[in-house]
Amino acid sequence: MTDTTPLILPELADEVDLRLARLLPMMREAGMDAMLIATNANIYYASGRFFRGYVYLAADGRKIYFVVRPNNFTPAPGIVEIRKPELIPAAVAEAGLPAPTRLGLELGQLPYNDALRLMRLWPDAEVDDSLPMLRQGRRVKTPLEIGMMREDGVHHVEVYRKIPALYVKDMTDIEFQIEIERVLRREGCLGFLRVAGNLMEINMGSVVAGDNADAPGPYEFTMGGRGVSPALPCGACGAIMKPGQTVMVDVNGCFNGYQTDMTRVWSIGEPPAIALRAHECSIRILRELERATVPGTEVREMYARAMAIVEEEGLREYFMGHRQQAGFIGHGIGIELNEGPAITPKSRDVVEAGMTLAIEPKFVIPGVGAVGVENTYVAREEGLENLTPAPEKMGVLS
Amino acid sequence: MTDTTPLILPELADEVDLRLARLLPMMREAGMDAMLIATNANIYYASGRFFRGYVYLAADGRKIYFVVRPNNFTPAPGIVEIRKPELIPAAVAEAGLPAPTRLGLELGQLPYNDALRLMRLWPDAEVDDSLPMLRQGRRVKTPLEIGMMREDGVHHVEVYRKIPALYVKDMTDIEFQIEIERVLRREGCLGFLRVAGNLMEINMGSVVAGDNADAPGPYEFTMGGRGVSPALPCGACGAIMKPGQTVMVDVNGCFNGYQTDMTRVWSIGEPPAIALRAHECSIRILRELERATVPGTEVREMYARAMAIVEEEGLREYFMGHRQQAGFIGHGIGIELNEGPAITPKSRDVVEAGMTLAIEPKFVIPGVGAVGVENTYVAREEGLENLTPAPEKMGVLS
Repeated sequence: MTDTTPLILPELADEVDLRLARLLPMMREAGMDAMLIATNANIYYASGRFFRGYVYLAADGRKIYFVVRPNNFTPAPGIVEIRKPELIPAAVAEAGLPAPTRLGLELGQLPYNDALRLMRLWPDAEVDDSLPMLRQGRRVKTPLEIGMMREDGVHHVEVYRKIPALYVKDMTDIEFQIEIERVLRREGCLGFLRVAGNLMEINMGSVVAGDNADAPGPYEFTMGGRGVSPALPCGACGAIMKPGQTVMVDVNGCFNGYQTDMTRVWSIGEPPAIALRAHECSIRILRELERATVPGTEVREMYARAMAIVEEEGLREYFMGHRQQAGFIGHGIGIELNEGPAITPKSRDVVEAGMTLAIEPKFVIPGVGAVGVENTYVAREEGLENLTPAPEKMGVLS
Repeated sequence: MTDTTPLILPELADEVDLRLARLLPMMREAGMDAMLIATNANIYYASGRFFRGYVYLAADGRKIYFVVRPNNFTPAPGIVEIRKPELIPAAVAEAGLPAPTRLGLELGQLPYNDALRLMRLWPDAEVDDSLPMLRQGRRVKTPLEIGMMREDGVHHVEVYRKIPALYVKDMTDIEFQIEIERVLRREGCLGFLRVAGNLMEINMGSVVAGDNADAPGPYEFTMGGRGVSPALPCGACGAIMKPGQTVMVDVNGCFNGYQTDMTRVWSIGEPPAIALRAHECSIRILRELERATVPGTEVREMYARAMAIVEEEGLREYFMGHRQQAGFIGHGIGIELNEGPAITPKSRDVVEAGMTLAIEPKFVIPGVGAVGVENTYVAREEGLENLTPAPEKMGVLS
């Protein structure tokens, strides 16, 4: 049986070059001759698939894919099978590339021992952290990446359309979440999403109802939730959802390796006036940011605009949590859920065309629950384009 | 609102001490005055819950829990809230503990930059990797941990009992998996499991049918599977399951932070004789290992016993994969899916009473699919006790 697969699919060859080309000026400016990409999200970025191995990228754009496994890729120039990374330097030399004098490694993500092992490949090279460059490069998406996120958005919206029909009176929050998960999976959700860093853990997302939305949590999600186990203290807690509560649904939008992030809220029976008002305030913030955010906008301006509306509406004490408040109203998104930039009051980051941002002005009303809307956007010259255009008004579950 | 929670639940206070006590002799032997535990699985081990922070453990058994978030734990001696790790040394001194001269950090898991940051807390201390000790300590479970895994097993078995009823003719493998996932979640599965290292990624487990079982994959699971996306090339591929194929179900057994690992196989219609024979061989291997594995057994003996049976039955070419063969027939399991010891031909590891092991002698029959059984066991003086005692014979789906 000889069913091999091209490691780089022919239709992705130009795409991969386009992505890697973003890194080259940053590398040259930092005097970095080469980077060795070794973490999962960046392997996927640099090849269009996940494989176990390494991507060696020289600052002049030449590259070698080192594959540990699987071993069913079609032999091709620039693809080298290795058993272990110690075989990389000889292969780099054989390809006519000089040994790097300044090497980039993903020091912010690679385990310490793995980083040390890779540093020993060229013991004379200075080593710099390449992760900031990779993250910077990944912020602005190519047209193909935007297309994949647009596809995520279509599926994500379709799932949210089906959510109200899944509710049954006296259901627990986790029962509701389980039915949502099934619809997500049937719509093509991979049931998995990549999160940057080692600190955040999540299953298929967060469904929080009533005061559980305000439970302080160990993860840097906007909303907490006690979870059903102290082993994973996050999201639904197993309580029956009751009239007068709101239910916030913020679930997995990863259908293809990229993802959209999206939140909608329903109330059980009629919602209290304050919850409706805060929810409408969230929608007002989004409309304002969609209009006012263009390439060149500082993300801290976005935060300030949102906060000005919150203050005007007198809702500050509920904004981004009540007992534990998140310090951001949105974040970049793509291969990882939590890409840059974080939309914080002090950030100096600037919006660029093609950047994809999840914006999530949320409120927690004590005794009621969380309200607010989250959409994923792509930044365009004329403002933010919504990739998750589902109805935003708070619906009623009954 | 003052609803605080004890960080260490009163009923877990002795348990946590029992767990940490395992580490102390190893620390003293290595001359390690203290370790600072900072990775998720070990935070859970050392406290019985996940929180974001650090556990400082001195070699004399004194300990301090440093909590970054959440901040709703009941104030108590030995619990210190901090905003950042740089505040740890002063708090250690204030507690009357000496600065460590030899400090343990989880260098095999902590990102390089995070490890460097923690190394700077006590710049004069030598630093050693504490991860091997933590993993060694975690291999042998306490009675409470075994109880939690027993509880996992009860739920896991109940889910497998329900699986045949989920099959519908002409279903795809992923449709089948989605229905299994729903039953798992309704049974209490957290929908998440911890995996050691940064290389393995999985959603709710693996359902592979037909030749998809033999697709080489980038992850170190026993079986591959193409997956439904090059972003997560693992498991079900979306193909309709057909008569003459076998379907292997190896799905998430994490119901409480610990987990069991369990595999069963069904055939679509009548299975080919060779598949049945290999499946029976797997069961024969398990019976032999259950009987012959006692405290003191070398795990390589376990491998050799299994291989002797495989050779006797003439099934070697199918064992542990066909195109890509796994080099192990089982592994430790607990908080993480892939704990030590790995059951490999050359391991010098020895079975101890209270060790929990997943044993998975599997075969891939080309053109048919994967067969074999996996159970999770706890090692007892009298042999292995099965925590996942569900029917093992290959059932027929129709």
